[in-house]
Amino acid sequence: MSATNSGVPVRDRLDKDCPIREVLDRVGDKWSSLIVVRLGQRTHRFNELHREIDGISQRMLTLTLRQLVRDGLVSRTAYATVPLRVDYELTELGRTLLAPITALHEWAVAHRDDIRQARADHDEAGAAGLGSRGGAGLIEATPDG
Amino acid sequence: MSATNSGVPVRDRLDKDCPIREVLDRVGDKWSSLIVVRLGQRTHRFNELHREIDGISQRMLTLTLRQLVRDGLVSRTAYATVPLRVDYELTELGRTLLAPITALHEWAVAHRDDIRQARADHDEAGAAGLGSRGGAGLIEATPDG
Repeated sequence: MSATNSGVPVRDRLDKDCPIREVLDRVGDKWSSLIVVRLGQRTHRFNELHREIDGISQRMLTLTLRQLVRDGLVSRTAYATVPLRVDYELTELGRTLLAPITALHEWAVAHRDDIRQARADHDEAGAAGLGSRGGAGLIEATPDG
Repeated sequence: MSATNSGVPVRDRLDKDCPIREVLDRVGDKWSSLIVVRLGQRTHRFNELHREIDGISQRMLTLTLRQLVRDGLVSRTAYATVPLRVDYELTELGRTLLAPITALHEWAVAHRDDIRQARADHDEAGAAGLGSRGGAGLIEATPDG
């Protein structure tokens, strides 16, 4: 996951030959997309996101928000209140990402049972010895031509 | 990356509380989406995919294809020729994923310069001491309420 090595990025890591790859890696990231969908509904505070996105650690939420802010997709606004209040909301650029991200979410919701069933069928076939691969090697001997 | 710990998965890892999360993690994965887009154009052999997807290792390609097959998104057909020929193509389920994945790719292509510029601006602001965060701590002291 790219998040783990880019706390304070020192250079633009976009691949010159395929610049969309790095962008995809970010916007296709599970946590990023879940945050973008939440912020598409309304502005959120940090702890609201932390509560609503089950399973995300505070560290991962902090890192992911920081990357989304750096990418210009999310804006962070701090208010000088006690306690300190910080709002996160989608930027104009971030809002353009809502449609494709939402389409991907809807696909996942619509087809989760298909995927679950496919996995069960596949694992069952493998357990019955009908699978085309052995259980030992990670890499097939000859992937093919 | 989920690929690294699921060579031969022993259980369905779909989160019961949020089953779309695991699905998103898979279909939003950079390599998976690049493979799905390639296979959306035509059937490919392993080595064709390896050549066309710059930067993917043979190991990662093998793992990602195996997951896509297990998820029911890609089918693998082996022909008893010399040398062995193995074709990968999208299943009917995999083809339904093409539209949202393609939309995400198109967004990435359309906005890569915006993101690149946002990163440059952000890093410049940070370097000039205008950023709202220090460079030392990974976690902000008090994320906020």
